[in-house]
Order: sequence, then structure tokens, then C-alpha cells
Amino acid sequence: MSTAIVTPRTPKGVMELLPRQQIAFQRMLDTIRRGYERFGFLPVETPVFELSDVLLTKSGGETEKQVYFVQSTGNRQQSREPDMALRFDLTVPLARYVAEHERDLAFPFRRYQMQRVYRGERAQKGRYREFYQCDVDVIGKDTLPIGYDAEIPAVINRVFTDLNVGRFQINLSNRKVLQGLLAASGVADADARMAVLREIDKLDKIGRAAVEANLTGEGIGLPADLARRIGEVVDMAGTNAEIVTALRRLGVDDPIFAAGVEELEAVTRGLAAFGVPEANARINLAIARGLDYYTGTVYETNLLDRPGFGSVCSGGRYEDLAGLYTKSRLPGVGISIGATRLFAALLDGGAVAADATMAHVFLCQLDPALEAEVFALAAELRDAGLNTEVQMEAAKMAKQMKHADRLGVPFAVMMGPDEAAAGTVTVKDLRSGAQQTVSRADVAARLLAGLA
Amino acid sequence: MSTAIVTPRTPKGVMELLPRQQIAFQRMLDTIRRGYERFGFLPVETPVFELSDVLLTKSGGETEKQVYFVQSTGNRQQSREPDMALRFDLTVPLARYVAEHERDLAFPFRRYQMQRVYRGERAQKGRYREFYQCDVDVIGKDTLPIGYDAEIPAVINRVFTDLNVGRFQINLSNRKVLQGLLAASGVADADARMAVLREIDKLDKIGRAAVEANLTGEGIGLPADLARRIGEVVDMAGTNAEIVTALRRLGVDDPIFAAGVEELEAVTRGLAAFGVPEANARINLAIARGLDYYTGTVYETNLLDRPGFGSVCSGGRYEDLAGLYTKSRLPGVGISIGATRLFAALLDGGAVAADATMAHVFLCQLDPALEAEVFALAAELRDAGLNTEVQMEAAKMAKQMKHADRLGVPFAVMMGPDEAAAGTVTVKDLRSGAQQTVSRADVAARLLAGLA
Repeated sequence: MSTAIVTPRTPKGVMELLPRQQIAFQRMLDTIRRGYERFGFLPVETPVFELSDVLLTKSGGETEKQVYFVQSTGNRQQSREPDMALRFDLTVPLARYVAEHERDLAFPFRRYQMQRVYRGERAQKGRYREFYQCDVDVIGKDTLPIGYDAEIPAVINRVFTDLNVGRFQINLSNRKVLQGLLAASGVADADARMAVLREIDKLDKIGRAAVEANLTGEGIGLPADLARRIGEVVDMAGTNAEIVTALRRLGVDDPIFAAGVEELEAVTRGLAAFGVPEANARINLAIARGLDYYTGTVYETNLLDRPGFGSVCSGGRYEDLAGLYTKSRLPGVGISIGATRLFAALLDGGAVAADATMAHVFLCQLDPALEAEVFALAAELRDAGLNTEVQMEAAKMAKQMKHADRLGVPFAVMMGPDEAAAGTVTVKDLRSGAQQTVSRADVAARLLAGLA
Repeated sequence: MSTAIVTPRTPKGVMELLPRQQIAFQRMLDTIRRGYERFGFLPVETPVFELSDVLLTKSGGETEKQVYFVQSTGNRQQSREPDMALRFDLTVPLARYVAEHERDLAFPFRRYQMQRVYRGERAQKGRYREFYQCDVDVIGKDTLPIGYDAEIPAVINRVFTDLNVGRFQINLSNRKVLQGLLAASGVADADARMAVLREIDKLDKIGRAAVEANLTGEGIGLPADLARRIGEVVDMAGTNAEIVTALRRLGVDDPIFAAGVEELEAVTRGLAAFGVPEANARINLAIARGLDYYTGTVYETNLLDRPGFGSVCSGGRYEDLAGLYTKSRLPGVGISIGATRLFAALLDGGAVAADATMAHVFLCQLDPALEAEVFALAAELRDAGLNTEVQMEAAKMAKQMKHADRLGVPFAVMMGPDEAAAGTVTVKDLRSGAQQTVSRADVAARLLAGLA
């Protein structure tokens, strides 16, 4: 065949890993999953594509511009419009799932979902077109106790602690606090409020004085005392209890504001009861951004040693998950780990080993006549729980060792004619280079001990 | 809002599971993964979409008719042809991956990949448009020892045994046997050979006599003695060693035939050395079907107690994985578990629990004043490794118990004011109804013992 060679390449904006990185990524996902399950959350998976009319019921704004449409060959040949699209998050599929299976689910419905999502964004560093999200949500029927708003960051605290991500901070806020403050100050217009939130979002970069100046400036035009009060609120520092007290002392006379403060207090009290260290979960009223979607508690999580990566885990409380699909009122609270971005951050910071290994033992072949015995030993080691790769044909030892080394396997086991006759094998610790003769009956136990 | 309700539904041809089935499905995937890793295979994941010109380099036959094309909104607006398509198997992405990352991989490259694939088939029972494949392959550079052809079914034997699928049979054959027989008999034409293989594929349904009649009939027209010999070969029964001996006794003078028999013998010898029971892996020369793609060893796996489901795991040896993407010669051998179909078969046969549970403990709330203590106990139980769901607000016990029951949680734990004062809790085994008072210091250990 003299077929032309097609250059093997992936589409832009995807993260494809080499196998030893993939092991590390898989272990990260396993740890996240174990954390979610430890809290009793149930797994859900949904199809990668949804019907377009189901997926794209929202405003048709930014989201729809980024959607990937899916079309079968038959559909295309008939020049039809695509009737399916790839999911762009896990929230819309959750809403569809809960509405579709409502009768079969027990509420509060606690689910986790760890799948890839797709966004037709311009590919650039740190922006992916395909990336993993690991979502955890609790959905109530009609009502949902505020205690869940504390459980969600408690889950994340456990997962991030188990992942050894280094210092991290789950920033907690409640949208009702600022909303109530603005309402009490007569700022009723939704656009004006949005403009205020956008300014607050710049606090980190431009500082409080500049934010206050912008709030009083042209375009927004808040009174100076209100701008100052907003600056004071979003810049509040101290323990969670101190911030709650300070908010109360502001004397804002508004029921939404009061509800927001009360919820913040309940969440921080719950977090303390769950044993979450306050250093890991702090009130930060400057995280104003969030989606409109959220109506109360909001979360953003930063890796303190990797500030450039932004929030790696965000979420919040919403009033009604699935109003587009069902008349039931389904309030919820949830959070999403951006696992692809998190992995990139951990890899960049060396918190993830890019050279993880899968096999524990590399079983060499020295003599073709011993093949059956080598295979039988491989079966024994595997039965004992050791991940074992076996050399499939006798070859030069140097070549076999080089292969084992590239795989990063900690142990090589050799059995030549003399050893086979004596009922022994040679075990080489490839990390230290140490080599010893071990009775064949003991080899599995010795290797297991060596791994521990 | 008076938005019209959109009926929540998935596209046809997907398998979406309720949470308690999803737990069982996830456990099945975990078992498969553990089996693959036990043999030292390395994980690979590839993007769900590939560039169309990379994915669709083949003949453009049946496959291309079933492809789902992917197009971003921007791409559509510019009326461009779709430049991406969803993967329809894991073999083409593997070929692309190995060719693209060739320099970074250690050969023989042993990888597993467990992801969903997409085919725009007409949706019908047992046919999915989205389904999981769990592939395991070994790719050599220039050559690949025959021992791997034995290791692949040894992996499947372990996985299927661990999955408790009941009786199963990995059917082994080697395409060179029939190819050599036909070549030695002067049937050289590729179409004629294909017609013969198609007839052999009917053996199960129509029996040997009818197959032989068809082989001599119009359209194929083989001589009667050749048809009889083919019938004899594909209907051979006995132990693996007996079949190898019988094949040798046929006295077919053809190097391809001889190579096929030798490879079959090496594979069955290797399987015996790996400790695979012969009942689980048998030579069956009637599995002629397969893709043209395979050139030597071929596998098909049947669940003997669920014959209606066909092969749930097929594969074989191929000469060159990635000739379309690289000039390197990359022979390989691999197999693919159709996990979605396998799950359907196991669920249908009751071999999978459709009511698996995630939480081990449901922690009740009896008194709002004890909320902090209940949360602290939840944290303790989780730290001890117990998957724990906590009731978030005090409610009627009957309601809490009903919820725990729907979740299938084995244990409920209650702490009222008296118990809190006494430093005890009440543990209820929801399976037996038995209830006992346990010191709070002992509760985690007692629950762990109760689960074991």
C-alpha cells in the first residue's frame, strides 16, 4: 500500500496526556470520587449529547454561541438542522435528568457527576474545548435546608485535603448580602446592580479605593457613602464570626440582607461542626461575580500557592433547578471542580507526579525453556494483588531492564535455570539497585512488603 | 416566569441509568479497570472528537455512514463542512495516539482505554448509539511475540471471573488456518474467501450439513471434498490440544496454515501456563467472522447463560496498527469489552444488583439543638471510612427512615438528647431491624464490623 500519511493530531483545545500522566490524572479523579462517595452522594452519568431543543432552552446568549452541534451522516444527507448538541456543563443535564426521572429519585437527591463537557471557545492557554467537570449537588423538593450549603464546602475541604493540593481557600459569600444592601440603598435596577458587581469583581486587581471611585463615577453614579459602605463590606477581613458580627453592626434594615447574613452564619457554623478548618473556608464578600443563576450562598476556591489559575472549584445555591422541564420546584446547592484545570495547576506546581507508574513488578525472561514457569509466576503475583508486566520473550537483560526503567516499575524479578532449579528468584529493587535471592514461595509476600 | 415546559428526554439509543444502577455499572467498570491494571496495562484517554480528516481516512464504507459529525456554532455560521467527528471506536484513536506520541512511548506499548464511542445506527433493542468500550491492546514495534496473544484472553479470563458473569467462553481461532486451507485448495480470490467466511458464520444457526451444501452451491461452488474439509475444520470439537493435533493430521501443505496452527498451539500453551481454565478459553474455528482487520488470532466471548446477547468481548491480532499515520510498522493484539451490552446482559440475568447502595450510614436528626453534635459525628464516621449521609434538619422519624430505606442504606444512627447526655447513640440495622445502644466512642468500629 502506498497510502499517503495523514499527520496524526488532535483538535486544538483538548488535554491529551501521556500514559504516566494519565495514571496521575486517574488517581486524582479517584480521590475526588472517593470524597464524594464518603458523603453518600450517588453517581450519575448522562449522554455526551442532548437533544438541541432540550439543551438550548435558555436565553440563547453566550452559551449557545459556544455549543458544538452533532449531526449523523444520514441527518446531514437530508440537509436537516442538527438535532443534537454536546453538553456544555453538567448542570443542564442534571436538570433534565432530575425532571425526567423525578418519580424514581429520593429527595433530597444527592448526586455527583464526573464527565467531560464541551465548549467551542477560542483555544488558548488554560482554556479548554473539552474538559472534565466533577460536580456534586443536592436537590430538594420545594425546600432545601441551609445545612447543605455547609456540607458542600465540607466535601470540597475533604477532597482538596486528600488531593494534597497545598494551601487552598474556599471563599464563601452570599449574594443576598450585597443585594440587600443595594435594595436598602434604593439601587433597584438589575443592570445597575450588575454594574456594581462587575466593579467589585475588580477588587483584587485595582484595590478598594479605585473600586469605590468607579462606583461613584460616571455610568454607575452611586452616592459616596453607599460606595464607601460597599467597599467596607467587600473588603471585610477577620474570622468568619467577626465578619458576621461586623455585617450585623452595619445596621442595614433590609430583610434580604438579614437573610443573607443569617445564612452565612449558619453555613460557617455548620462548617465548624463538620470540622472544616477556618483557614480553608472563609467568608469573602468580594466574590460577587458568579452567575445570575445563584441566589444565595456562593463558592469560589483558590489554590493559594497557584494564584494564576483562578478558581478551580465554584458553585452555589439556586432557587429552582429545572423550571424549564418540570413544574416541581427544585431548589439546590452544588459545586463543580474543574478537574482539567486543577490537574494543569497541580502538574505545573509539581503537586502531581508526572511519572506515576502502574506495574509493580516487571518479570524478566532469561531462558525460553522457562516460559511456562515465568507465566505461572506472573499469574501467582497477579493473584497476590501485584500489578505485573511480563517480558514476553527472552531478550538481552540490558534491553529488558531499560524497558522496566522507562515504565518506572519499582521491582524486577528474574528467574534463570539455576534459580528455577533451586526454587528461587532474584528480586531487584530498581529504585535502589539492591538485588537479593528470594525463595519462590516467599516472593509475592516480599514484593508486597517492599511496596508498602 | 411562564415559560413553556420542554419535555425532558434523552436522544434515542443511549443507556441512561438510575443512580442505584449507575453504582453497579461503576463497580463493573472498576473491576474491569482493576483487572487491566493487574496485568500492568497503562491508561489512555483520548478526546471524544477527532479531526474528520484524521478519523475518516479509511475506505469510507459502512463506518463513515454511521459517523456523528461535530460542528461549532461559529463553524456552522460560516457554512463550513464539519471538521470534527465523534470517535466510533477506540482503535482508530489508539492508532492516532500511538503514531502521534510514538517517541514518548515505551514499546511494547500496553494500554487500556475505557470510554464511550458513538455510532449513528438505527436505534433498536440492544443497539446503542452511545456505548462504553473497554479496550486493552499491546502494540509492538516491528514485531510482537505471540505470547501476548495468550495474555490478552488471560486478562479477560480474570476480569470476567472477577465480575461473576457466570459461565463464559472465550472462543479462540486463527484466521491463518482457514486462509491457509483455502489457499492450499486454490481458492485465491478475496471475494470468494469472504463468501466462504460468511457461510461459516452461519454454522451455529443452520448446522454443518447446510453450510457444506451452501459452499458447494451456486455462487461459491467449492468442490465437495473441500467443502467437507472446511466443514470438518470449523466443526472440530475436543480439548485445545486435541484440536491442534487434528489440524496437524489434516496434512494441509501450506505455510500460512502451518503458521496458524503453530500460533494456535502457542496461544493455548500460554493460556495453560497463565492458569486459565480450558473451559473458559477454547479453540472454536467457526468464529470466522471478525473484521478483515485481524490477521491471525481472533477472539469472541460468549456468556453461556445469556446466549441471546452474542459476543460481549471480541478482538484479535493485527499486522499494522497505524499505517495511515506513520511509516513505523506497529503490529498489535487486543480485545474490547462492550461494557454497555455486557451490563445489559448481566442486569437482565440478575448477575448485577440493580439496587446497589452508596451510603453505609444514614445519620438521623432528632433534635435541632444537637445539630452540631450530629455534624461532628458525621465527620468522625467519614474519617473512619464510612460513607455517611446526614439528615439536615430534624423531621419525623418515620420520614427519615423512609428516606434511608429508599436509599438502601444498611445502618441508621440516632442521637437524641438522652443519648447525647449518656455519650451513646442508637444503631439500627435496617436489613434486620435490630437496634442497639452503642457507646459513641465505639460506633465507627461497630459499624465497620457490621459492614464487613
